[in-house]
Amino acid sequence: MAELLGVAVLGAGHMGADHIRRLDRVVSGARVAAVADPDAERAKEAVAGIDGVVVHTDPEAVLDAPGVEAVLIASPGPAHEEALLAAFARGLPVLCEKPMVPGSEGALRVVEAEARLGRRLAQIGFMRRYDAEYQRLKSLLDSGRLGRPLMLHCAHRNVSSPPDFTSAMLIESSVSHEIDAARWLLGQELTAVTVLRPQSSAGAPEGLADPQFVLFETERGALVDVEVFVNCGFGYQVRCEAVCEAGSARIGDAHTMVVTAAGGACEEVAQDYLVRFADAYDREVRSWVDAARRGQVTGPGTWDGYTAAVVAEAGVRSLRSGSRVTVDLAPRPAPHTPAGPTR
Amino acid sequence: MAELLGVAVLGAGHMGADHIRRLDRVVSGARVAAVADPDAERAKEAVAGIDGVVVHTDPEAVLDAPGVEAVLIASPGPAHEEALLAAFARGLPVLCEKPMVPGSEGALRVVEAEARLGRRLAQIGFMRRYDAEYQRLKSLLDSGRLGRPLMLHCAHRNVSSPPDFTSAMLIESSVSHEIDAARWLLGQELTAVTVLRPQSSAGAPEGLADPQFVLFETERGALVDVEVFVNCGFGYQVRCEAVCEAGSARIGDAHTMVVTAAGGACEEVAQDYLVRFADAYDREVRSWVDAARRGQVTGPGTWDGYTAAVVAEAGVRSLRSGSRVTVDLAPRPAPHTPAGPTR
Amino acid sequence: MAELLGVAVLGAGHMGADHIRRLDRVVSGARVAAVADPDAERAKEAVAGIDGVVVHTDPEAVLDAPGVEAVLIASPGPAHEEALLAAFARGLPVLCEKPMVPGSEGALRVVEAEARLGRRLAQIGFMRRYDAEYQRLKSLLDSGRLGRPLMLHCAHRNVSSPPDFTSAMLIESSVSHEIDAARWLLGQELTAVTVLRPQSSAGAPEGLADPQFVLFETERGALVDVEVFVNCGFGYQVRCEAVCEAGSARIGDAHTMVVTAAGGACEEVAQDYLVRFADAYDREVRSWVDAARRGQVTGPGTWDGYTAAVVAEAGVRSLRSGSRVTVDLAPRPAPHTPAGPTR
Amino acid sequence: MAELLGVAVLGAGHMGADHIRRLDRVVSGARVAAVADPDAERAKEAVAGIDGVVVHTDPEAVLDAPGVEAVLIASPGPAHEEALLAAFARGLPVLCEKPMVPGSEGALRVVEAEARLGRRLAQIGFMRRYDAEYQRLKSLLDSGRLGRPLMLHCAHRNVSSPPDFTSAMLIESSVSHEIDAARWLLGQELTAVTVLRPQSSAGAPEGLADPQFVLFETERGALVDVEVFVNCGFGYQVRCEAVCEAGSARIGDAHTMVVTAAGGACEEVAQDYLVRFADAYDREVRSWVDAARRGQVTGPGTWDGYTAAVVAEAGVRSLRSGSRVTVDLAPRPAPHTPAGPTR
Repeated sequence: MAELLGVAVLGAGHMGADHIRRLDRVVSGARVAAVADPDAERAKEAVAGIDGVVVHTDPEAVLDAPGVEAVLIASPGPAHEEALLAAFARGLPVLCEKPMVPGSEGALRVVEAEARLGRRLAQIGFMRRYDAEYQRLKSLLDSGRLGRPLMLHCAHRNVSSPPDFTSAMLIESSVSHEIDAARWLLGQELTAVTVLRPQSSAGAPEGLADPQFVLFETERGALVDVEVFVNCGFGYQVRCEAVCEAGSARIGDAHTMVVTAAGGACEEVAQDYLVRFADAYDREVRSWVDAARRGQVTGPGTWDGYTAAVVAEAGVRSLRSGSRVTVDLAPRPAPHTPAGPTR
Repeated sequence: MAELLGVAVLGAGHMGADHIRRLDRVVSGARVAAVADPDAERAKEAVAGIDGVVVHTDPEAVLDAPGVEAVLIASPGPAHEEALLAAFARGLPVLCEKPMVPGSEGALRVVEAEARLGRRLAQIGFMRRYDAEYQRLKSLLDSGRLGRPLMLHCAHRNVSSPPDFTSAMLIESSVSHEIDAARWLLGQELTAVTVLRPQSSAGAPEGLADPQFVLFETERGALVDVEVFVNCGFGYQVRCEAVCEAGSARIGDAHTMVVTAAGGACEEVAQDYLVRFADAYDREVRSWVDAARRGQVTGPGTWDGYTAAVVAEAGVRSLRSGSRVTVDLAPRPAPHTPAGPTR
Repeated sequence: MAELLGVAVLGAGHMGADHIRRLDRVVSGARVAAVADPDAERAKEAVAGIDGVVVHTDPEAVLDAPGVEAVLIASPGPAHEEALLAAFARGLPVLCEKPMVPGSEGALRVVEAEARLGRRLAQIGFMRRYDAEYQRLKSLLDSGRLGRPLMLHCAHRNVSSPPDFTSAMLIESSVSHEIDAARWLLGQELTAVTVLRPQSSAGAPEGLADPQFVLFETERGALVDVEVFVNCGFGYQVRCEAVCEAGSARIGDAHTMVVTAAGGACEEVAQDYLVRFADAYDREVRSWVDAARRGQVTGPGTWDGYTAAVVAEAGVRSLRSGSRVTVDLAPRPAPHTPAGPTR
Repeated sequence: MAELLGVAVLGAGHMGADHIRRLDRVVSGARVAAVADPDAERAKEAVAGIDGVVVHTDPEAVLDAPGVEAVLIASPGPAHEEALLAAFARGLPVLCEKPMVPGSEGALRVVEAEARLGRRLAQIGFMRRYDAEYQRLKSLLDSGRLGRPLMLHCAHRNVSSPPDFTSAMLIESSVSHEIDAARWLLGQELTAVTVLRPQSSAGAPEGLADPQFVLFETERGALVDVEVFVNCGFGYQVRCEAVCEAGSARIGDAHTMVVTAAGGACEEVAQDYLVRFADAYDREVRSWVDAARRGQVTGPGTWDGYTAAVVAEAGVRSLRSGSRVTVDLAPRPAPHTPAGPTR
């Protein structure tokens, strides 16, 4: 392989700093060339010990820094649209954390902008596609060995929610992972959504509808149900069972050690997503770097980011109305085909 | 203990014959005193090798046979109402296989007839309440250790359905077990039901809506979802996960032996309900005999049989309309209180 | 079936009282006809609520009581030889708790006495043969599906040992179950034993060699290793993995409910053998009653009781010497063949 | 971080080629600077697509190539001693695949040569120490939460053995991993070994003693048993259960997906060690590169390589004699302390 890929990282917060560490220490083939953050101190801290990194408060300045060949966007969601368009304007391959853009209108503008380029530039950060368990499930479903998938039963549980988490964010932020995972696993678009609200847990903050139970229908008649429970109190759990015509397959109960002591035979439950999906993040970034060095863009694309936004918006409407809401997607731009299901 | 309890068994078909064997060979404290079946030959076969059993084609004659102190009804559902009323008229304790009575109207008549007696006489055959795993789950929920239950995720799968199975029977016959189990586990009545139809499996007979996905709401806001799939192709599986405020508990994946050979590390899946619930049937009948010998009736009662009928009818309406259907129960007769949730 | 089998129970201690309850309340086909215990009060308590039971302090008087057709010996081990011979003299079928007779000399006298009768009368209480998991493993091994068994890895763990437990009793009392189970599973006699003493646990009483690690060799070259740890502190665990030419099979990790809460995803561990093997005891006694009513004796026999005694004695010698000790069995009496491996 | 670490790889066979790929594509911070292999063509193939790599048939020439700052030895075992001494002479940090040196005499010479340097230069390729499951177990044992470890029960199974595998190689090549893992987990030296030979599997080549059962004693009285079975037929399994004073912990049954279909509920078993320990190899090499760039050497050292050789030699003697063999280690050189247990 040739030279290391020079990456500009936008955003040096929790996730951005983790990606900087990953690019510098874990993933081969890349180097951190520049970092932008409105808080210059925070940016400097994040690159401490790494030589030759341009640090700036202005994302555009960073994109134009010498040696920048690719962009990783880890800034807050509202800054994504501008950053994506700036990367497109410079022809730089992008890895953009989710949500691609908050709201389906901006998301559609990004899809269309990329379509006008006539080639893919953006990969969206749906990292579950890089998780070993999900990949095994996907591979089994694609093999046809169990026949067609008829249902997915999913659970998505967090120990507790951040202070400002709203009822809508259970859909927009948490379930958006299941939206992408379901589309990817089934190879189908989601066509309708119904959100049900069981009584809320005493462990959830006052006013938060938690847990919720979300039902998706797909274009070829599969059913996807998702329990989302962001104050479950015990750990971070992501489970998925695919029920197919000739069998079922379940992921998310993986364990590595059984400890038998007073209290029973116990397996540890991960406490957060950075632990549960640590390898998936590594694999995602490695895959992006490898492709970028070959001049390619793979993985989930802007269409996936857009559909996730549309479905989540429908979900929030269903949460509020209590009724089933259909999903209306814009026509998919031709001729280039970013990732995701095709009808 | 005193003398053996003399039991009249109505019906000598598959289930009746199994109960005759159980009363004679497995459960202590009882003896088969009389058996009725329209097919006298079948009845005789079922009691081969048992001494002193009166056999008749007429159920009433059998109830009046000498030494009959209790009745086990295992005849087809349409015969249940008359048999129950005949037992009530004679003051005999009854164990009645499910469905108690097909249809909610007849079921209500039975509830009211028992209410007029002023005491319980009937136990209905919801045998899951006697399964060791369900009992463990019930006991955990009742302990309050996990806080209030918010959701039940259930699956009910059969290898294949009998030839004449209809889409409505997935609710009436299969899901009726979950209806009772959910009411019992949660101690709450079910208030509404929605039945969703994913695409049917290629493994299901033409025209059968299989699998179905059934959602129940409860009077205090819990949510119960049930996957029912009667042609799943691989085994008989009954699973239930209770998601509570402080943790979750799951039953139905019990195994007894792990065999590791070419093909992986495998656990056997039971092939039918008589295997999966063999011990539950034994325990149910033993419990009924024990109580009857003490002059008592315990276990699920006529109110449970009635509510199961009402909820199943609502489910079938939802299956047909595709809409949510509310459950309307008649007022519960006073003053005697058969089993089941009280509001 | 005909009349109930009248059973005399010798010994009304912990185990005897449990068997009295089982004969009276759980197992069909039998009734408690008489009970002997040196402590007459204890015997009376054990039969409270059961009609028509003869109670006496003298076992012989009890064997001669009217209606006694079979004997269940649950008295302390040193009383067994005399009781067995008395039952043989009267031609009564016996179920004798283990150890059949403490010490191989007395055990051999019992074998020879039964041999002189020319027919089997005694079943020895190795109840693991009636455990559903062991039966499944036995059935798999016998099927030949995994080829020949080459090794058994066993663990036998108790929460804590009784106050007067000695290092030799880990072999004589605990491992004697594995001795019989291994012979039965493999269909082979054990030919040598080596006992190793790792450092003792701080949780074991001073001076007790606990845990121990026991190695058995068999007549056709299989190897059986047993960890015995009677102060493991967390529960009662009995595990067995059979390693065969084409795969392995493991029992003893069965669970019925997974509870996920703070602390992980946990399965309960049974706290004592009466819980773990409750069903096995029921099945053992039911099987014995069924056979006795047909005039037969099945299950493990006096030869099994004798070989267990011989192997345990060799084990205790190895524990003391630290060396490998060969097992020397007396010639097996002909022509009647009690249960157990034949060379 | 500064420049990439220039690594010379000795040996471009199966393992060497895999390490070349890992250094080039997976692990950050390193680059392949030079490769030596007697077969120059094989070396060239292994570096295809990597720029600026010196390729030579002479290891010494490669160590002297420009840009070489560290050495990874993946040549056949007999070449290791010379390569290690050559690296020591140049002061280059080394990662040496196991066995460090075949035979304890050469191994001791390497220990002494490094001791004369007065600092560590060599890390030995016991990659299990870098496996996530082993690390979790080690961390639990070190926490003292379960009290002192008393026993380790281990199993090491391969689908089938290479054509020229000998009975001694089950100890030298396979069990050597358990030798190191046991020393590391327990923090104790092994003091004696006994090898038992159950009958061999029909699935093993004629003349190969497979399986074997190996018992190690440790300096503070723990017991380690290892089933090694290199023709088990079904997969690659490495299991370890640590039995401690207050509980037990088991690794090696990790699963990622449960597939329920005709045949049961099955988990996949890895087919070879490169799959099972893929992450461990990555983590091992990453850890070595990270340390080397900081001028350090961590991980298992030459003392660990030496003791593994001595214990394996004792094991082979026990295999041949059938008797217990004590382990005699040379005095440990002072003052520098390579890794491994200290008395």
